[in-house]
Amino acid sequence: MDENIIGVQESGAADELTSEFVASINLALDLNETAEAKNLAQSLHYADLADLLENLAHAQRENLVEALRSEFDPNVLAELDDTVRERVIDQLGLSQVAEAVAELEIDDAVEVVEELEPQEQREILEALPAGDRTLIEQGLSYPEDSAGRLMQREVVAVPMDWTVGQAIDYMRDTENLPTDFFDIFLVDPRHIPMGTVPLSRVMRARREIELTQVMRKHIKIVPVGMDQEEVAFLFRQRDLISAPVVDESDRLVGVITVDDIVDVIDEEHEEDIMRLAGVGEEDDLYSAVIDTMKSRFSWLLIHLVAAIIAAYVISFFAGTIEEMVALAILMPIVAAMGGTASVQTLTVAVRALAMKELTMANAYRTIGKEVAVGVLNGAIFAVLIGAVAWGWFGSPALGGVIGLAIIINLIVAGLAGSSLPILLQRMGFDPAVASSAFLTSITDVVGFYVFLGLAASLLL
Amino acid sequence: MDENIIGVQESGAADELTSEFVASINLALDLNETAEAKNLAQSLHYADLADLLENLAHAQRENLVEALRSEFDPNVLAELDDTVRERVIDQLGLSQVAEAVAELEIDDAVEVVEELEPQEQREILEALPAGDRTLIEQGLSYPEDSAGRLMQREVVAVPMDWTVGQAIDYMRDTENLPTDFFDIFLVDPRHIPMGTVPLSRVMRARREIELTQVMRKHIKIVPVGMDQEEVAFLFRQRDLISAPVVDESDRLVGVITVDDIVDVIDEEHEEDIMRLAGVGEEDDLYSAVIDTMKSRFSWLLIHLVAAIIAAYVISFFAGTIEEMVALAILMPIVAAMGGTASVQTLTVAVRALAMKELTMANAYRTIGKEVAVGVLNGAIFAVLIGAVAWGWFGSPALGGVIGLAIIINLIVAGLAGSSLPILLQRMGFDPAVASSAFLTSITDVVGFYVFLGLAASLLL
Repeated sequence: MDENIIGVQESGAADELTSEFVASINLALDLNETAEAKNLAQSLHYADLADLLENLAHAQRENLVEALRSEFDPNVLAELDDTVRERVIDQLGLSQVAEAVAELEIDDAVEVVEELEPQEQREILEALPAGDRTLIEQGLSYPEDSAGRLMQREVVAVPMDWTVGQAIDYMRDTENLPTDFFDIFLVDPRHIPMGTVPLSRVMRARREIELTQVMRKHIKIVPVGMDQEEVAFLFRQRDLISAPVVDESDRLVGVITVDDIVDVIDEEHEEDIMRLAGVGEEDDLYSAVIDTMKSRFSWLLIHLVAAIIAAYVISFFAGTIEEMVALAILMPIVAAMGGTASVQTLTVAVRALAMKELTMANAYRTIGKEVAVGVLNGAIFAVLIGAVAWGWFGSPALGGVIGLAIIINLIVAGLAGSSLPILLQRMGFDPAVASSAFLTSITDVVGFYVFLGLAASLLL
Repeated sequence: MDENIIGVQESGAADELTSEFVASINLALDLNETAEAKNLAQSLHYADLADLLENLAHAQRENLVEALRSEFDPNVLAELDDTVRERVIDQLGLSQVAEAVAELEIDDAVEVVEELEPQEQREILEALPAGDRTLIEQGLSYPEDSAGRLMQREVVAVPMDWTVGQAIDYMRDTENLPTDFFDIFLVDPRHIPMGTVPLSRVMRARREIELTQVMRKHIKIVPVGMDQEEVAFLFRQRDLISAPVVDESDRLVGVITVDDIVDVIDEEHEEDIMRLAGVGEEDDLYSAVIDTMKSRFSWLLIHLVAAIIAAYVISFFAGTIEEMVALAILMPIVAAMGGTASVQTLTVAVRALAMKELTMANAYRTIGKEVAVGVLNGAIFAVLIGAVAWGWFGSPALGGVIGLAIIINLIVAGLAGSSLPILLQRMGFDPAVASSAFLTSITDVVGFYVFLGLAASLLL
């Protein structure tokens, strides 16, 4: 019997990372009472301690890590945000990090190691016991963001012809099973998974019952190379708690559990929301100013090019504007409405593509609907804005021109906002990347061109 | 022994909802081969069938639901998107829906019933057996989006002084336990949860071991009124699979499992991303054109007001623009850069607030950092845009003025983009709502005012 699983308790008396708690840690660190700070920090669950380290200012964090050094909980490393983890690893030094990695579960260890520089990776791997090193290296050999990186290698797999009693005896007598698991997998002689049995079903069946009688047959099997986004989709759709992972020969090689999938879902969502706003994925609260600046720079540059193109379009009509300065005053309204409408449409489309709700089967229907929405809202806002322009500048013709420009721009926003992400996805790109810059560029250009062009030909 | 748990298998031979599969269903429906369509649809897992129904056009969906009517799987209802579910429920009629609801697990039943009109709710509840009705009504009595709505009522709870063997015998001999469960809860005589034991630990311990020896002591307990977002945070942070829910007297009343939390996380993500783009939460692929139009309208109206304010600011400088039309050509660039930078900052801040990374403890630090990023990127883009303006219009002074305006606007974008969501959160509002309209309004007004104002006083 594995003694580890008897009497395992979560550490810690403090149950919550409250802002009072953070304040008292900060105070202790400010007063250089490192022993006090260390005691407080060690009363936390490792996940809360990771949150605390993320929350502290740079210098405070260094002091606390220094205080905790000799008893630093390896699990904290796995919980830390990438940017903060890198700094803590630098501070702890490679030999201590190698010791910590050796204590982690393989999937957590892979997560910590995969983010390191190649040179650091090599040094840490060399410092590890051979068994751990091989498993971690195998984990790293799978493509980034694939099922292979996510899976745990320790699986509870038993022959298909066993009874419930045999399975229970096996689990009681075998060391080296995962600490926590939720399903046992039935495999054929070639180690190909044939069914899963949730533990609650094993538990409730009599010993003489055959496992095949209580197994789920139609199981979802994850190929080791499957993208983590696909894996998350499977879990979400089937309410899975764990799923077997197989290699190219369909043999069981690992298991993915839902707690890792929750992290994947958060990660994929972060990607979507950040890319829509044009913020690099590396950009988070903990990055240095210079890194954040760089991550935002390229997107601002793309928008600058888009804005210059729009300005160039305006310059065609410099003469028109000189004759009628009201056009300069009103033209940003046309562009703003088009930009807003296109971002609305884009966001709905990107989200629906990510959730696999928007597929080729309903792509045309979706685009058609967005155009229809553009027509309707365009008509309403044409009347509103037309009335404002008429009232403001006393020219019904000017009101008519801006109204017409608004309708056209909102239709273009619906059309481009829905078809561009579908097109990008079809071409194999991430539909969230750069879409919004393209779109506002399109609606700016169309807005300025149509409004000023109509004004030039109809009003002067 | 509960016969239900023996031999339970997932239905269905078709393993995947491929686009070929959707095409063949569509073809069968087009050709009025309803028997064929029905067979195909029934070969699917209920989650895939729900996806299929979402994916079909309105008329096709109605035909398929009609074909499936007599054997409609109640679980499909729980999996459907709200908008589509409403339509299917209307089509099936209340008496059949009531039958379906009676077959669902309580948490799923609550999910289906909570979205109905009050009148429909009452009729369905009246048609249910008394026991189910009471449980569903209890579920509905908890606030929307609270733990009480999410939880399952069937819990495996045993006295603290039991041994592993007693627990196993209890689970084998008791009917009416949940179909699948992952932890058993130890309760004291007042039914207050004192610890949880993961099934894998029960399974691996010998019968004579006391449950308290293998339990987790420091468990996370969810009060029945806790907001689902908080619950999701707990699960995510502690990698929980299930958590006990307690009432006001700390007595165990239910359990929340991670599969429901995955749905909550998706829902909260959707809320964030939709609110940032100003799209109503009701707005999805399946809403009717008119509903989508309405859900976008108010946001466009807010942006219209913002754009009119910006236009009003421009109108102060009508004379300046008439004298120097280059200003009209360049001014959208200043506004666009400020708008882009503020949305970048806003998105990072909203995301960090949602993930509880941005707290009062690091709020000032975060705002300071965003201002610093604004200064740096502002300086770089000031040079770039200044050079473009100089080259284009041959006026170094114009280049200087636009450069200065860009720096100021990017600093304002960093300051407002980070402090506005923090302020909204502090005041108890959702930081994602309406922030981007306020922000682009701020950066538009500042951009136009500073650029045109500087030009008026320095260039003319």
